[in-house]
Amino acid sequence: MIGGGRGAFIGAVHRMASRLDDRYELVAGAFSSDAQRSRDSGADLHLASDRCYATLEEMVSRERQRADRVDAIAIVTPNHLHYRAAKLCLDAGFHVICDKPLTTTLEDAEDLVSTAESVRRVFAVTYNYSGYPLVRQARQMIAEGLLGDLRVAQIEYAQDWLATDLETAGNKQAAWRVDPQRSGVAGAIGDIGTHAFHLAEFITGVQVAKLAADLSTQVTGRRLDDNGQMLLRFANGASGSLWASQVAPGNENGLRVRLYGSKAGIEWSQEHPNQLRFAPLGEQPRFITRGGAGLGRSATAASRVPSGHPEGYIEAFAQIYSDTADLILAANQGRAAGEGALLVPTVSDGLRGVRFIHAAVESSRRDAAWTNI
Amino acid sequence: MIGGGRGAFIGAVHRMASRLDDRYELVAGAFSSDAQRSRDSGADLHLASDRCYATLEEMVSRERQRADRVDAIAIVTPNHLHYRAAKLCLDAGFHVICDKPLTTTLEDAEDLVSTAESVRRVFAVTYNYSGYPLVRQARQMIAEGLLGDLRVAQIEYAQDWLATDLETAGNKQAAWRVDPQRSGVAGAIGDIGTHAFHLAEFITGVQVAKLAADLSTQVTGRRLDDNGQMLLRFANGASGSLWASQVAPGNENGLRVRLYGSKAGIEWSQEHPNQLRFAPLGEQPRFITRGGAGLGRSATAASRVPSGHPEGYIEAFAQIYSDTADLILAANQGRAAGEGALLVPTVSDGLRGVRFIHAAVESSRRDAAWTNI
Amino acid sequence: MIGGGRGAFIGAVHRMASRLDDRYELVAGAFSSDAQRSRDSGADLHLASDRCYATLEEMVSRERQRADRVDAIAIVTPNHLHYRAAKLCLDAGFHVICDKPLTTTLEDAEDLVSTAESVRRVFAVTYNYSGYPLVRQARQMIAEGLLGDLRVAQIEYAQDWLATDLETAGNKQAAWRVDPQRSGVAGAIGDIGTHAFHLAEFITGVQVAKLAADLSTQVTGRRLDDNGQMLLRFANGASGSLWASQVAPGNENGLRVRLYGSKAGIEWSQEHPNQLRFAPLGEQPRFITRGGAGLGRSATAASRVPSGHPEGYIEAFAQIYSDTADLILAANQGRAAGEGALLVPTVSDGLRGVRFIHAAVESSRRDAAWTNI
Amino acid sequence: MIGGGRGAFIGAVHRMASRLDDRYELVAGAFSSDAQRSRDSGADLHLASDRCYATLEEMVSRERQRADRVDAIAIVTPNHLHYRAAKLCLDAGFHVICDKPLTTTLEDAEDLVSTAESVRRVFAVTYNYSGYPLVRQARQMIAEGLLGDLRVAQIEYAQDWLATDLETAGNKQAAWRVDPQRSGVAGAIGDIGTHAFHLAEFITGVQVAKLAADLSTQVTGRRLDDNGQMLLRFANGASGSLWASQVAPGNENGLRVRLYGSKAGIEWSQEHPNQLRFAPLGEQPRFITRGGAGLGRSATAASRVPSGHPEGYIEAFAQIYSDTADLILAANQGRAAGEGALLVPTVSDGLRGVRFIHAAVESSRRDAAWTNI
Repeated sequence: MIGGGRGAFIGAVHRMASRLDDRYELVAGAFSSDAQRSRDSGADLHLASDRCYATLEEMVSRERQRADRVDAIAIVTPNHLHYRAAKLCLDAGFHVICDKPLTTTLEDAEDLVSTAESVRRVFAVTYNYSGYPLVRQARQMIAEGLLGDLRVAQIEYAQDWLATDLETAGNKQAAWRVDPQRSGVAGAIGDIGTHAFHLAEFITGVQVAKLAADLSTQVTGRRLDDNGQMLLRFANGASGSLWASQVAPGNENGLRVRLYGSKAGIEWSQEHPNQLRFAPLGEQPRFITRGGAGLGRSATAASRVPSGHPEGYIEAFAQIYSDTADLILAANQGRAAGEGALLVPTVSDGLRGVRFIHAAVESSRRDAAWTNI
Repeated sequence: MIGGGRGAFIGAVHRMASRLDDRYELVAGAFSSDAQRSRDSGADLHLASDRCYATLEEMVSRERQRADRVDAIAIVTPNHLHYRAAKLCLDAGFHVICDKPLTTTLEDAEDLVSTAESVRRVFAVTYNYSGYPLVRQARQMIAEGLLGDLRVAQIEYAQDWLATDLETAGNKQAAWRVDPQRSGVAGAIGDIGTHAFHLAEFITGVQVAKLAADLSTQVTGRRLDDNGQMLLRFANGASGSLWASQVAPGNENGLRVRLYGSKAGIEWSQEHPNQLRFAPLGEQPRFITRGGAGLGRSATAASRVPSGHPEGYIEAFAQIYSDTADLILAANQGRAAGEGALLVPTVSDGLRGVRFIHAAVESSRRDAAWTNI
Repeated sequence: MIGGGRGAFIGAVHRMASRLDDRYELVAGAFSSDAQRSRDSGADLHLASDRCYATLEEMVSRERQRADRVDAIAIVTPNHLHYRAAKLCLDAGFHVICDKPLTTTLEDAEDLVSTAESVRRVFAVTYNYSGYPLVRQARQMIAEGLLGDLRVAQIEYAQDWLATDLETAGNKQAAWRVDPQRSGVAGAIGDIGTHAFHLAEFITGVQVAKLAADLSTQVTGRRLDDNGQMLLRFANGASGSLWASQVAPGNENGLRVRLYGSKAGIEWSQEHPNQLRFAPLGEQPRFITRGGAGLGRSATAASRVPSGHPEGYIEAFAQIYSDTADLILAANQGRAAGEGALLVPTVSDGLRGVRFIHAAVESSRRDAAWTNI
Repeated sequence: MIGGGRGAFIGAVHRMASRLDDRYELVAGAFSSDAQRSRDSGADLHLASDRCYATLEEMVSRERQRADRVDAIAIVTPNHLHYRAAKLCLDAGFHVICDKPLTTTLEDAEDLVSTAESVRRVFAVTYNYSGYPLVRQARQMIAEGLLGDLRVAQIEYAQDWLATDLETAGNKQAAWRVDPQRSGVAGAIGDIGTHAFHLAEFITGVQVAKLAADLSTQVTGRRLDDNGQMLLRFANGASGSLWASQVAPGNENGLRVRLYGSKAGIEWSQEHPNQLRFAPLGEQPRFITRGGAGLGRSATAASRVPSGHPEGYIEAFAQIYSDTADLILAANQGRAAGEGALLVPTVSDGLRGVRFIHAAVESSRRDAAWTNI
């Protein structure tokens, strides 16, 4: 693991996610750019001190020389460090699991795609919400034609934790997210909008062709967007809109997808993830539940406990990790991976997310002009 | 009443709404352009046969000569007839209660505004959703500053009843709504988008300055829009989006308003109208209920039964009628009207709705260019 | 109308309910035992002053002598006056619409049943919740066998408005309800428990054979029960429980019915009355909505506006009034009434409610011993 | 671990729960009474083959002789084996984590309480629902007096998976649960009712003094109860009811607690565990969310990820394991355990659960007579 030292939020999530299904063992890390902090963080995790590194360079160079070298490296740093870390890991032959957004520039993202391809390493990007069973159920249902032709997509991801300028009040999570040096060209659109965008394409199986975006900064003094609305046009002609906000009081982590086709509508909300509302035209709307009647193969495979026993964020994140473990095993053994593993967001999805972010920023700069992704 | 004969939906609603609070008595009508049908419809309603007229011209000319002439005339015809009927009624000195959208052209709407002003008659436009107690509560709370500065507005109105081409299957309600001759330049945006737009301005107390709209027709062969998304910019700089659709399976009458300010967020949904979600920043979100704790004056005044005893669509519609009765009494007596009466949408709101419709259509024709309202 | 003068809650509801569907005209009343107050109340309602009576005896004797005498009389007084009023009305040949509970003693209730039968007058008891379309839908579905054999029934009616001793704080609605002189032997069980009981039998079509009740008084100094739980056994062997409380903070008017059979479960809640949850065993639970797909004949007949346009408490109450109008017309014309009219709760249902109340009180006195109804 | 071999449900849950927070390592097990199956199950879990035992006796006797002997043993067998396994583990000096219900007889449960005390070992009983953060929040709020005096408790736990006779259709989970030899004297009341009962006492801090139960068997041929309703009386005089059913179609794992006091009401539902509804009398009901505003110390300590990122069943179960780890460390080090650890359900809570089950069965046999717990 690179990043994720004491006090980091997402590092701890990655560790729980990797542990839950017993597919990984954490044995080495460069948890912090501060050597002592990295060692302390590693000690908290019962790691051997000689595998707690001060820098990612040290980690990569030392681990590649060990017989018991790690199989894969998780990158959980702020955005601006993703590229350098991932590049180094790939070049050293490690499989990579990297947080989103993949990079802060398009060029870096494209380079990682070609590098990963040439070194033939697994490269997972933790668009973790795609690990939810009912997200996969929705994807499968649409692939099977139950929605008919996609017509309308309403996608949103609303939070409220940045409704005040936490970044000047000592909040570290806030500070790097609103800092262009560490976060890149976008704020909310990059931090959460990209998740919403990924789900939209992941579930529908249709790409977004262009967008017209109006990004804004609602909190005075902030340097990146904290709210953005946009119009979407999908490759098949469907219309959509996407809203991402971190300044909407009363919204905790309101990622919500509503898709409407010629035959049915489907709705899913991350805060109540164990159910999927399905409304075939002219029939009574019904709820498909995790573990309940009529659940498809892909959702069932991504589920751990019976219906009515809620699974949540950590389980969905763990699903990405478990499916990536399958990918890694298959790659190591030179064989094809299973079905679930093919749902793992890859470096190409990461690139697509970076394209989305840049298109949104560019469109907004041009007064919401339609911009291709 | 003009329009609203046998088989019409909205005419029956107007009649129930006018009756509920015992403020009106229906005594005359031109219910249909077919004389016999008009008389039959009047007979259903226990009206004297000599006050069931074959044409609106006949009704207006005959009623104005009666000592017991009607006080006010409700216009519930398809859109394209609103202007002619309203103009005639006003010129004859009757107060008018007219369905929305006010007219099919901007010129007609402007003419009605100036006519109503010059004849000094009450002119209510039935933006009926503004009659819901908790809509008025939201308006009052925002006026009192509880939301802080408005930052983000997410407005939507989704239905599914036009997801197939009902209009070719003999459905009269569908047929006129998708017919440019009777409906005007817009379909869904004119039929329901205008309600959503009215609520946005009614509740926030801030005007929408401009919009960038992407209207589309999802059902093949249809001649007007049946789905539209748009970006909004409010006069105070707040960002918003508005979605109106009649092709979203699983949505019955999904009018929903979500408003976020610097101090709090507020959410209301027409299908569960007796509660308002209020989330002050940094506090626990709470539900304000009709009749419940902390309800303000304007909502209390618009309520009939105790909390927990649901009021609905007819009651909200009746509220517009009752408040209009107050307006009419005040006008007839030459005195100022009460507080509730001042909330009644007027011909000016009707004009504003027509401006909105035309701006949306124009923006969409210009590839979603920003267009002032 | 007898009772329902200025300041009364339920009288106003009866009037709106009778007015909504345009089937009744209110022309006479004895609104209060205070003659002046009765006249003033009548004047508020635009009644002729000579038909505003000081006593019910005066009203009945004077109205029966008029050529334009009233067809039916609504009794909306506190409970202890129901019997005397209803008896007098029946004996004078008027149809009766009476609030619940029917009477305060079993003997009185039985007498009204036999009197109504002998004078052949319509006698409706306003168990108004049975007027909700989806309550009737549930009844029809169970009658058609969609639930299979009834196994379990969970019935509850929870409020919180009597959680403090409002009765000593000048609240008139509270004062008579907790006064054995005016309310009878029961408090919450009589005021709201009887509604829950009626729905249980109305919807399931199965009688409750016996109950074991634990009534309690939670507010110090109160003389009647304000909370009661009981076990139920239905005639077909099904098990159930019923809870009625007026001291449950956070509950406004929480009447809720959950029924489980060998084939399916069904759930309905009065505070969200426009939907019915239906869960066939082994299938996805779905929502049946008022006006939506698959709605049956009896629910459709009890509905006024399209799906998604909420109907509520007043509409359900109005349904009882409208169906009773059909009953009265049929009785006056000596013909059979229509299907909807046969759903109107009658004096026999009123008697059954009184039996329920007395059985609950008796069981509780005997330490929750099983008691037949 | 004892029990929990291939195909077992709850064993896998215990393993995920123990792993999530990185407080345990599974190193030995007697997973099945079939030696080969036990070894195979152990191999699945990457265990050394010499620590996969064929019997619990072998496991206990061999482990106690190892220098690296296990610290604690989890017992996840069917109910009838709990006693023998737990007794043996305790006598050998191991800490015990045992599934519920603790034993099938009162005598066994009492013996385990005294044994655990005399050997001074930690004995946790996995009443896992008490590990949910908002369950602990409710407990803390009530302890702090926010509910006032407890007046009414409505507790329920409804499922539908045994609505047909799965037990004769080859379902192993069903088969042992409805078999008196393996399950004990009770079916649904023992399997899930005991969870509901534990939560009632855990959250309120008040003991249930007596109950009057009506247990029934709804599925023909079944030998234990599959549905039970009961009246409760708490030690402080509060009234309650408890419903446990495994034959209620449409209910997956519907554990729900509603508590009403003189000052407020509180409601929590296991299927939406990240929020707690709190309704102070005379104020607007609000939602307390995991990670949200106003969350107390005990709930915060039991939470892993930020608000809006749902935690679920596995996390709550893990909380019991983590807190038990604290208890074990404290016991091993001879010091007092922390606050969270004191919330772990112990062998005494297990005994109380067994008392509840036996009281319910006895009451039901005596025609729902009040029976002390």
